[in-house]
Amino acid sequence: MSGENEFNRRLDALAAATETELMQQLSAAPRAGEIARPERLMAAMRHAATGGKRIRPFLLVESAAIFGVSESTALPAAAAFECVHCYSLAHDDLPAMDDDDLRRGLPTTHRAFDEATAILAGDALLTLAFDLLARLDLDAERRVALIALLAQSSGIAGMVGGQMLDLEAEGRFHESKRPLSLSAAEIERLQSMKTGALLAAACTAGAILGRANDSDRAALAHYAKALGLAFQIADDLLDAEGDAAKIGKAAAKDAGRGKATFVSLLGNDGARKKLAALVDDAVAALAPFGVRAAMLQDCARFIAARER
Amino acid sequence: MSGENEFNRRLDALAAATETELMQQLSAAPRAGEIARPERLMAAMRHAATGGKRIRPFLLVESAAIFGVSESTALPAAAAFECVHCYSLAHDDLPAMDDDDLRRGLPTTHRAFDEATAILAGDALLTLAFDLLARLDLDAERRVALIALLAQSSGIAGMVGGQMLDLEAEGRFHESKRPLSLSAAEIERLQSMKTGALLAAACTAGAILGRANDSDRAALAHYAKALGLAFQIADDLLDAEGDAAKIGKAAAKDAGRGKATFVSLLGNDGARKKLAALVDDAVAALAPFGVRAAMLQDCARFIAARER
Repeated sequence: MSGENEFNRRLDALAAATETELMQQLSAAPRAGEIARPERLMAAMRHAATGGKRIRPFLLVESAAIFGVSESTALPAAAAFECVHCYSLAHDDLPAMDDDDLRRGLPTTHRAFDEATAILAGDALLTLAFDLLARLDLDAERRVALIALLAQSSGIAGMVGGQMLDLEAEGRFHESKRPLSLSAAEIERLQSMKTGALLAAACTAGAILGRANDSDRAALAHYAKALGLAFQIADDLLDAEGDAAKIGKAAAKDAGRGKATFVSLLGNDGARKKLAALVDDAVAALAPFGVRAAMLQDCARFIAARER
Repeated sequence: MSGENEFNRRLDALAAATETELMQQLSAAPRAGEIARPERLMAAMRHAATGGKRIRPFLLVESAAIFGVSESTALPAAAAFECVHCYSLAHDDLPAMDDDDLRRGLPTTHRAFDEATAILAGDALLTLAFDLLARLDLDAERRVALIALLAQSSGIAGMVGGQMLDLEAEGRFHESKRPLSLSAAEIERLQSMKTGALLAAACTAGAILGRANDSDRAALAHYAKALGLAFQIADDLLDAEGDAAKIGKAAAKDAGRGKATFVSLLGNDGARKKLAALVDDAVAALAPFGVRAAMLQDCARFIAARER
């Protein structure tokens, strides 16, 4: 265990490095071969890509580090994964989706600009993610493996599919317009797709960069699956207990809407117990890597307890 | 010249083959490794991906054919490019964007489903495009070249950027809220990005599949650039002259809104002259390929005269 302060310092340092990498890629100056980069679009993309804990970049860089991959090699791939996360927030916040005005204490992209610009900024961030991966300074095999991984974890059967299931669970397409009652298995499927898939893919991306063998990949995948669920339960607990000032968006809004969560199914105490078990599971999965995985283990231990 | 009937038969045959390929990829059954494919999302994706002339797949398959690439090899890549075109229509039709109720004579995706589902279906189609390219039965070098090409032609400096410029040209972000006056150069830049880039990329994709040399690529790029502008001018002439029944959406809507087009700048006659010159230019660019490029030449000759 490296300690909460050391973990937080590392998380913050990688967040800053990710932000620098993203802002460089989102500069308004056209790259060679580009006709133009419309200023309003670039500004909205930068807005959508600003801030956040940068958990996915952290997971990618630290997973890669287990296999000796340098931070400077891993960061551009990490920025691509973060582009996908940021686009999904810009689209999920839209009036037609979750209709949020604030994100990380700032106006959401459609509030800072307008709906059309927020839709396009999201589309462009998603597209840029694949552009960044295609241009990594790596052999084509690993670039294409990262692209397939990102597309599969963020598409139909991953993040976008999970968001669709979440909207359905709200009951908005149902005659009653009232939240549906989901089983624990259905909630787990929804969360695995909506947030778990991309978090797990960030870990797998580190393994791809590091040319990890199958058993090392499986250990990381085990960790990532437990971490993803733990992260979601911690988030749900925050929503259920938090206050707006602390988390920078309307608190208890998800709960108030009757969104399907483990907290609504198991209660606060039951959810806290499940969270603790998942953290133990995540930490144990990385035992084979010894001290090289200390940062990822601490991520599981501490991130669940942090405010967003 | 192969004749208009032969060209139309080939265009229709490839459109049908593309539709089959797309619907297979958009089946509701999860692929190996997928958790689930939400039914509502898949239905909306199929809706958004149905119909149309399938010009981009035609250009990709016929460009590849110049270099001896079989239709069965080129079609899955063509389907990926068409996914991007279809996602862009679903998003452009949204209330916050062009607010269209009809597309190809059918309800637009957000009218057939709802706004949130249309946004997600578009996101998922864009993501699927890269998934399809990453899984092509090709060496990794060509897969990654196709992915970079698609990302660059459809992102910031291509299609999405062009749509942003188009919304700006409407004047909606301007104090006056009235259409801006664009120069011919500005209109050409806008159109090159919004529609030209992806049309050109489809031709270049064929060249990549066929491992074309630099001079052959340059000839195809020359053709594609002229074709893209010709296609846009023909579209603008249709909008200015067409009637709703014929083109399946509110005719003259673009013109009524004061959208920046060559027709508004040059008048109908001037635009028709420019169109004819561009078609000649496109046809001449393919002369080095002889009869192997006859279909692409006919595409330039006839597509400009067809209704949408």
